[in-house]
Amino acid sequence: MKSPSGESLLKLIAALLLAAAAAAQSPPTKFPDATPTAAPQFSPDLRAQLTSLRDAALASDYAYQQLSHLTENIGPRPAGSAAAQAASEYVAAELRRLGLDVHLEPAQVSHFVRGEEKAELVSYPGQGPNSTQRIVLCALSGSSATAPDGLTADVIVVHSFDDLAALPREKVAGKIVLYNVPYDERMALAGSAFEAYGQAVVYRSRGAKAAAALGAAASLIRSVGGANFRLPHTGYSAPAGIPDAALAAEDADLIDHLAAQGPVRLHLTLTPQSLPETTGYNVVADLKGSEHPDQIVIVSGHLDSWDLGRGAIDDGAGVAISMATAQLFQQLHLRPRRTLRVIAWMDEENGGGGNKTYAKQHAAELPNHIAAIESDAGAAHPLGFSLKMSPEAQSTLRPLADILRPIGTTLFYNVPESPGSDIDPLVKAGIPGIGIIQDGRHYFDYHHSPADTLDKVDPKELQENTAAMATLALTLTNLPDQLPRTQK
Amino acid sequence: MKSPSGESLLKLIAALLLAAAAAAQSPPTKFPDATPTAAPQFSPDLRAQLTSLRDAALASDYAYQQLSHLTENIGPRPAGSAAAQAASEYVAAELRRLGLDVHLEPAQVSHFVRGEEKAELVSYPGQGPNSTQRIVLCALSGSSATAPDGLTADVIVVHSFDDLAALPREKVAGKIVLYNVPYDERMALAGSAFEAYGQAVVYRSRGAKAAAALGAAASLIRSVGGANFRLPHTGYSAPAGIPDAALAAEDADLIDHLAAQGPVRLHLTLTPQSLPETTGYNVVADLKGSEHPDQIVIVSGHLDSWDLGRGAIDDGAGVAISMATAQLFQQLHLRPRRTLRVIAWMDEENGGGGNKTYAKQHAAELPNHIAAIESDAGAAHPLGFSLKMSPEAQSTLRPLADILRPIGTTLFYNVPESPGSDIDPLVKAGIPGIGIIQDGRHYFDYHHSPADTLDKVDPKELQENTAAMATLALTLTNLPDQLPRTQK
Repeated sequence: MKSPSGESLLKLIAALLLAAAAAAQSPPTKFPDATPTAAPQFSPDLRAQLTSLRDAALASDYAYQQLSHLTENIGPRPAGSAAAQAASEYVAAELRRLGLDVHLEPAQVSHFVRGEEKAELVSYPGQGPNSTQRIVLCALSGSSATAPDGLTADVIVVHSFDDLAALPREKVAGKIVLYNVPYDERMALAGSAFEAYGQAVVYRSRGAKAAAALGAAASLIRSVGGANFRLPHTGYSAPAGIPDAALAAEDADLIDHLAAQGPVRLHLTLTPQSLPETTGYNVVADLKGSEHPDQIVIVSGHLDSWDLGRGAIDDGAGVAISMATAQLFQQLHLRPRRTLRVIAWMDEENGGGGNKTYAKQHAAELPNHIAAIESDAGAAHPLGFSLKMSPEAQSTLRPLADILRPIGTTLFYNVPESPGSDIDPLVKAGIPGIGIIQDGRHYFDYHHSPADTLDKVDPKELQENTAAMATLALTLTNLPDQLPRTQK
Repeated sequence: MKSPSGESLLKLIAALLLAAAAAAQSPPTKFPDATPTAAPQFSPDLRAQLTSLRDAALASDYAYQQLSHLTENIGPRPAGSAAAQAASEYVAAELRRLGLDVHLEPAQVSHFVRGEEKAELVSYPGQGPNSTQRIVLCALSGSSATAPDGLTADVIVVHSFDDLAALPREKVAGKIVLYNVPYDERMALAGSAFEAYGQAVVYRSRGAKAAAALGAAASLIRSVGGANFRLPHTGYSAPAGIPDAALAAEDADLIDHLAAQGPVRLHLTLTPQSLPETTGYNVVADLKGSEHPDQIVIVSGHLDSWDLGRGAIDDGAGVAISMATAQLFQQLHLRPRRTLRVIAWMDEENGGGGNKTYAKQHAAELPNHIAAIESDAGAAHPLGFSLKMSPEAQSTLRPLADILRPIGTTLFYNVPESPGSDIDPLVKAGIPGIGIIQDGRHYFDYHHSPADTLDKVDPKELQENTAAMATLALTLTNLPDQLPRTQK
């Protein structure tokens, strides 16, 4: 928990950052403060319920307890693993204990198993006799395996797809391609972490394919993330039939610097396995609506995580605050008018098997889905909400800013695509979709790395996220009228 | 390089930190700003030479080039390794190229070789079927090896030596002891990083001995360092005849949390080897004095590093700025009146073989050693100097603050012990000893970890350190009178 003086310091720093951004003549901020509209207001009853729900959330340690169990007692939860299975069963049992109607819904999910992974420089400029240097890296999900004793090849360093495309095939064939493209930390600290991620992550997802097309023996990227502490950041990559790994930023720079001086030869061993798809489980748990039990409002996060860390910020936190929403409804006897559906998605990270299956299995029910909320951008302070819905629907929700103003969650920001990947099939079906906008400045410092652990979540900020999700969910379940569908 | 606005922000943050420290009613600051004394002043000639030396240092990239070569072309340089040997030869050749009289002086040095190191939880509260959790750790230098297939035992968590002492022997015997004692990051950020380190590092150096005395099967510590990014920090530990390792902070906390809920059983494999001492080399390079060639002023850093990182802040930087001092003297044709001796020490980290041998081999010469400077606290902004010498000697040096005031290097701070471990035998012999006080707030975030790499050094701050060391060295070689010896 942060001390009051810590908070003041944070506010001051935030003010400084805003001032710095203004001074840098940045384009108009993308997250304008919400002005309370003169238009629709919530009923006094709803306002009173929302206020007590907000305050209960800010006093509750339930979400943190759940997050602690998921990350520390269960641990890393990659799709297809025994731990993922245990996590689905745990969440189902806990939501059942809260009195919800719970189903474990099977889905075909990916099954990536990390093997041995190591690399070392075998020759490079300035090398001493009998010397080598260790390279820190991790396989990406689409990686093929090397031979058990590895492969050895020269490294070609490029800084963009254009760089690569400019090379003749014979320069690339048989070589190891390294894309040394940094994640833009300054952009992230200025408030555009997801844009910074987007710029760099294309090399993770598509780099190996482009390298393989030119006959490369293997593809390497610089890890997509901030705060360089010699950590590899894993993630999804499109399979390209070649070994494919992410280097710690420091190791990408090392090779880049050495390759500028002369030939660099690398020995690389990666033995990951992409096993056949297996059965995983979405947890789908309903707190039935009192007036419109057939109308559904989803609160959700994804239960699977990458294997290197313990999946705290990505995305144990999203599951924990979704569970806490149901727990608070029960604790405060806030029986919703529509059905509150908690979903803990399986296999967001690798194949998306969980969300695809849900959309198919529940196709007949989708017209009755009123809205879908997903939290999958960490657990830092919630600045507001990202919305994919009609302007009319947005203005219906805006009075919520008055309830959340005391915790600084007031932004209602329209996004062009789904605000979450698991709710994407629902959003594409016209269902209003909502994400929580967490302060993302440091999200990618830990994202997909071994350092995504419980201590990266501030208990007070997790309470704020619970307040944001729970009050939004109560608004959506209890508004007199259904939220209008999104124009397709 | 930092932009001007970055500097302003740093200054603002520094001011905030000072204000916060004052508000917290901390004891009087330990680094008072130096008030220029009315007493001895430097001659106009010396002032002019120092000013041009300072400005040349601030414009020179020589130290960074050397640091780059040591860390990236040569790489990690643990004592006894082929890379350490290559580093000694490289530094000798480079100083010879600069025109110095160079000797590679053999010394018996330690020879620690890291083996396999891995650990996983095999049973713990809340564990799912077929689940385990990986523990990130590294062996410490005094560690014995486990059997090749490891050992398995329950973990006992303590938070102090007193905690351990309060346990009956039968509770500890056969168990793995984990000392979960955090490095105090708040203390470090408030300006007392070395005190924070001192509080925690006793568990690294002596924890295994205390655990072994009660029959423990192995000893583990929480890594001594800040900024938790799932990194282990290695270092010296007194051999205790049992396996001995440092866990990433996150893994120490995990085990601590789980052990509070029930028994935690760990499988631990460590196969390090402490090989017989071998021959390593101090590089000792003289730029002969024009008037008193027999009188010696040492500038130094240590060339060996730990094996996990690349030894940039610890202590490639110290060697690089010592080399740069000689290079700048030559570049500016500043032939010193006394002899400038550059030393790149070997085996500071583990056995101290280099400095012990130097003190013995040069015993007859020690009365002519005027002063010894060592930089071994990183490469961040130099705040000033730590001095172990008489008050009279200190006041002789104080006018240097006027020369370095423009770069903010003005503190002259008296220390009770040697300001550096390699110059300790010299300081004990009465030779005035001087260290550079670098801004230490983030030093231990990287110290002894895999993340001690070139990018952690800001080129501009390295230039400031070169300016501090070079101007101090010129002062000491060219002052009219010898610096008085330290009272023993």
